[in-house]
Amino acid sequence: MEKSITYATSGVNIEKAESFVSRLKQRSIREGHKELWKAAGGYAAVYPLQPEHAVAVTTDGVGTKLLVANELSDHSTIGIDLVAMCANDLICVGATPNIFLDYFAIGKLEDRIADAVIEGVVEGCDRAGMLLAGGETAEMPGLYEDGHYDLAGFAVGFVEKKDLITGEEIAAGQTLIGIGSSGIHSNGLSLARKILKPGSEAYRYLITPTNIYVKPAVELFKTCRQAITGMVHVTGGGWRNLFRLNSQVGFSIDHPLPVPPVLQEIAKHVEQEEMYKTFNMGMGMCIIARDNVDEIITTFKAHGFAAQRIGTVTSEANTLVIKPLQITLTD
Amino acid sequence: MEKSITYATSGVNIEKAESFVSRLKQRSIREGHKELWKAAGGYAAVYPLQPEHAVAVTTDGVGTKLLVANELSDHSTIGIDLVAMCANDLICVGATPNIFLDYFAIGKLEDRIADAVIEGVVEGCDRAGMLLAGGETAEMPGLYEDGHYDLAGFAVGFVEKKDLITGEEIAAGQTLIGIGSSGIHSNGLSLARKILKPGSEAYRYLITPTNIYVKPAVELFKTCRQAITGMVHVTGGGWRNLFRLNSQVGFSIDHPLPVPPVLQEIAKHVEQEEMYKTFNMGMGMCIIARDNVDEIITTFKAHGFAAQRIGTVTSEANTLVIKPLQITLTD
Repeated sequence: MEKSITYATSGVNIEKAESFVSRLKQRSIREGHKELWKAAGGYAAVYPLQPEHAVAVTTDGVGTKLLVANELSDHSTIGIDLVAMCANDLICVGATPNIFLDYFAIGKLEDRIADAVIEGVVEGCDRAGMLLAGGETAEMPGLYEDGHYDLAGFAVGFVEKKDLITGEEIAAGQTLIGIGSSGIHSNGLSLARKILKPGSEAYRYLITPTNIYVKPAVELFKTCRQAITGMVHVTGGGWRNLFRLNSQVGFSIDHPLPVPPVLQEIAKHVEQEEMYKTFNMGMGMCIIARDNVDEIITTFKAHGFAAQRIGTVTSEANTLVIKPLQITLTD
Repeated sequence: MEKSITYATSGVNIEKAESFVSRLKQRSIREGHKELWKAAGGYAAVYPLQPEHAVAVTTDGVGTKLLVANELSDHSTIGIDLVAMCANDLICVGATPNIFLDYFAIGKLEDRIADAVIEGVVEGCDRAGMLLAGGETAEMPGLYEDGHYDLAGFAVGFVEKKDLITGEEIAAGQTLIGIGSSGIHSNGLSLARKILKPGSEAYRYLITPTNIYVKPAVELFKTCRQAITGMVHVTGGGWRNLFRLNSQVGFSIDHPLPVPPVLQEIAKHVEQEEMYKTFNMGMGMCIIARDNVDEIITTFKAHGFAAQRIGTVTSEANTLVIKPLQITLTD
């Protein structure tokens, strides 16, 4: 196969989706409401309840990883991905994830699938320390093919004003800490499925559940919150997620984490730059710290995650340089 | 057509769905969390933030009304239904709806559909006085057929302990106030679509958006909250929703609201009792009041909704008698 597959040719149009989201946002400014607190990267909406307390909310799905679960007939961990996608977003604004709700829609309810999916959601909530407070199960004959289903997650967290991460305190010279991913996580699956075929050795690694970074993050919020100026959940758009937090700075990466085998396999068929613009490339989260770097690394390692200093913040706005690969990404 | 179609033969298995939900609940009791406040009918999960303040959360979809929107190629109001399904649930526990998030998943993003859907969501948020704080748009080639999409909503409200509706204060002799529906609302569509065919006069009334009862309800919470002992959002399961709030009482209905034409049409092919166990039959919400009955009726009417005294609470537990029709439903 030629190295010519991009995310757009795989059927997902990021630009169209982004313009749609911006249209949506324009229309969503309503009167009579308190103003949302400006939170880092738009990872969650932060609504103030009181002058010093706010609720942070977010929603997400797992995209076409659902189709991987179907193809592998393994529904036991997709619920972990669902919780991960929401919970990892909440910590990026400094919130402590607290409540989770799931929406599960299927053509015809099958106990075998439904039980496995919900077991995964419960396991995910355990890993994130969240309460599964409820959910909706919809049986929709005619909308989904046999065995197909969709999943959406909703997460609520709480944050005090003094702990909110805004991204505004990110500055040149600060340290980038990379936290290891478990594999492809829950983004870029449409492209991955164009390249890896069911039955292949690599394909079954696509189902590996997304790491949930909540517990070490919440631990650090208690011990050294002020050392952290930014947290980037590396989702759709790959490493370009780093540009979400602060448009005044850039990033220089000299010691990237190792790339997981499943992404190495995909990389045989996709341009290198496209890989970094689509996948997490071994880094599920990036922490930007002005202090306590060793403590942050140690804490994540204690929870079983790879963690290392990968580079620094630069003053070259909206530019990310991956030195060992001579790649430069811009916003 | 014989009067032999039931909700189960239409492809939706309520009992299976209910047992699934109860299994889910058993697994969702997590440690390290505050206990949820017991709220009426389980319409929302109510999580205490402080001794006197709580956040109420709920999630819902619009079921196979999505397929009606597709068949009529009219996506302009399905977003109103989505907000309605969530917002009307929140008021049933006494909460003031505040924040809304949507999840929109489609095979291939089409501006025409997406814009119409989101315009409906924004209109719904206006009607409910809610802030559309964010959402997720997922493009999933392979999961949805061309033009098909799914929608899930997530709503957050706030409630003080003194204003929480628990249903425990419902007692024999209290008044039932019926609030008019706009038509079929967003439940029972799988059965309706078995009976009414696209192209028929009645079919196009299936798309009429669900009434949003938030504004009069919130007004009444401010003026006479203590007069209201229960609020029932009539959703899946039809009038059996009345049994959700208090298992010690029953209901006697002598003056039901008129049945909308679209439901009259469906009733030609479905047993009468099944109709009341599946559809709202003209009553989108039922308020149980121990006082201020005239004020409650006047307030809902002022917001354009039909409202009337329809009956009383009885001491015959879990029994609902619709006198003019000689129907008795039990839990």
